[in-house]
Amino acid sequence: MKLYPVVMAGGSGTRFWPLSRVRRPKQFLPLSSAKPLLLETLARLKGLATPAQTYVVCGPVHAALVRRMARSLPSGNVLVEPVARNTAPAIALASWVIATRDPDAVLAVLPSDHHVADAAGFRAVLQQAAKVARAGDLVTVGIQPTRAESGYGYIRLGAPLGAGVFRVQAFVEKPDPVTAAQYVSSKEYLWNGGIFVFTARAMQEAFARHLPQVAEAMERLAPRIGTRSFAQALARAFPRLPSVSVDYGVMEKARNIAVVRGDFGWSDVGSFAAIPEVRPTDADGNVVVGAATLVLDSAGCVVLGDGRTLAVLGMRDTVVVDAGDAVLVIPKERSQDVRQIVEALRLRRLTRSL
Amino acid sequence: MKLYPVVMAGGSGTRFWPLSRVRRPKQFLPLSSAKPLLLETLARLKGLATPAQTYVVCGPVHAALVRRMARSLPSGNVLVEPVARNTAPAIALASWVIATRDPDAVLAVLPSDHHVADAAGFRAVLQQAAKVARAGDLVTVGIQPTRAESGYGYIRLGAPLGAGVFRVQAFVEKPDPVTAAQYVSSKEYLWNGGIFVFTARAMQEAFARHLPQVAEAMERLAPRIGTRSFAQALARAFPRLPSVSVDYGVMEKARNIAVVRGDFGWSDVGSFAAIPEVRPTDADGNVVVGAATLVLDSAGCVVLGDGRTLAVLGMRDTVVVDAGDAVLVIPKERSQDVRQIVEALRLRRLTRSL
Repeated sequence: MKLYPVVMAGGSGTRFWPLSRVRRPKQFLPLSSAKPLLLETLARLKGLATPAQTYVVCGPVHAALVRRMARSLPSGNVLVEPVARNTAPAIALASWVIATRDPDAVLAVLPSDHHVADAAGFRAVLQQAAKVARAGDLVTVGIQPTRAESGYGYIRLGAPLGAGVFRVQAFVEKPDPVTAAQYVSSKEYLWNGGIFVFTARAMQEAFARHLPQVAEAMERLAPRIGTRSFAQALARAFPRLPSVSVDYGVMEKARNIAVVRGDFGWSDVGSFAAIPEVRPTDADGNVVVGAATLVLDSAGCVVLGDGRTLAVLGMRDTVVVDAGDAVLVIPKERSQDVRQIVEALRLRRLTRSL
Repeated sequence: MKLYPVVMAGGSGTRFWPLSRVRRPKQFLPLSSAKPLLLETLARLKGLATPAQTYVVCGPVHAALVRRMARSLPSGNVLVEPVARNTAPAIALASWVIATRDPDAVLAVLPSDHHVADAAGFRAVLQQAAKVARAGDLVTVGIQPTRAESGYGYIRLGAPLGAGVFRVQAFVEKPDPVTAAQYVSSKEYLWNGGIFVFTARAMQEAFARHLPQVAEAMERLAPRIGTRSFAQALARAFPRLPSVSVDYGVMEKARNIAVVRGDFGWSDVGSFAAIPEVRPTDADGNVVVGAATLVLDSAGCVVLGDGRTLAVLGMRDTVVVDAGDAVLVIPKERSQDVRQIVEALRLRRLTRSL
């Protein structure tokens, strides 16, 4: 039973504006290193699966970019969602396509835009999850919390199934900070990092039971997989599918759910405030990027230049980003509010840099 | 006795980097309005003197720029200092050149890079100073202080000579903040704004007495003024003159010094922190410049864009400047430290944007 990584690259966030744009969202940005997060994600799979076994799911706007970036992948392994319908339809698409190729396939669904410090540890956890999945469970990887984060969903652990493997008692929405602190101190919760491992067969059955509309649409499309008419048929069928996450549509409803604990220096790189978690900092805790970026007498800043002269002096905990055609300055603790800027630029029709 | 304004445009500061550059220092920047400070200064003279009576002194690097900007001035009214020798030699040059044209000339030496809110009040004070100067005194205009500023030189008032006119008891160097507060509350001090009004004759005599080396050099050059060989002779003589300010070299030593009080909304536009004194602010005290500059939920900021998208959110009392090829972020209270950045860029050989 071979492992097929499926990298989910359909996201279209605005929290990294002005670096992220409609045509170049977060997963295509070199946020954690000089390489885009998507390529870091693919590089992390080395030793776990061959490029021929590795798939990327993305939107039509980004398909060409993915093929250009991920040259090692066969072109047919870039699966294009005709429209964005959240993660459940995208995972169904991957499950049916890969099952056609290998009925015994084990899939590992992975976000394309997260950071992992310990790639070997990450691969070991995926191997362990694949072993559990081969028995028919839908397996999620739960991340060992390192702080009382209220920005993530949590997984409540149930009965132990083995070393670091548990039944899932519940998927829990983002808690308030007090509840988050309770979750972490109880040691009964892990972070939901959006990593899922399962056999194609088990996921197809779960769709048939919990999202039958999606399963039926995929069954009707299945005979065309690998033929010239598949893309066109998919383009007709996909927009009618419900927009729903795999967490909500499948995982929270299914019974055969297990969780494998993972602790491999994970970050979802959720905003500019997370950059110091994934990039080297100087002695004052500044992240300084750019050949002509100068940061003097400052601390806790994230200063990302694009090669032009960018000078910061006397600042504390401030994000400064020069994207070439647009510049952002915002307190680090307000990094999430970059969205407000994007909204305001739209309202004022300053859309050139969106 | 006609009035000849002499606008001093030889400055080469770095406090407005990245807007100011070696080839385009402060006086050529549109800091107080959409017009460069030099042009605002010239416009302020309308009604006081014709363009034919108006002179600008500048360095050789900027002569072409001055002639291009100040088109209304006769080309010969742009006096070029071959090298920078502070204000005394520059004022001697203007005095001897203008005396050759009009032996009864009254000169008004004016900085090119200051802001005046009340131009009519400014002209009235210069008229009054010219009247005093016609009697043979060297007259300075003392600015009515509006705060205990420790960044300016002060003029200590002596015996009154008329309404708002006094003998000068002393020119005082920049005081510490406590002394500055005492000066202002005593009402015996005015700010030294670098404005001087005098007859060419009186200034020539003052040079002969207090800076004889300068006077002798100018006397030797005088026969060539207006001839083709003047520039070359000046280029040989000028570098040998002492580098000294007119304040130190002449005004502090002479006896016949008077001061006229001026109160016309003056600012020396000393750094980015002074921009809110001379530019309209929004309801939160921000100065926002640029067609695609967006400032949200911020107060007391100076945000100067160049047309590119520049977004600032959640900042307090911060200066953000985009000069096209270089970006600056600095707390407003540290605006003076822009010089440190210029020094650091030099050290790192990032001189492209200097």
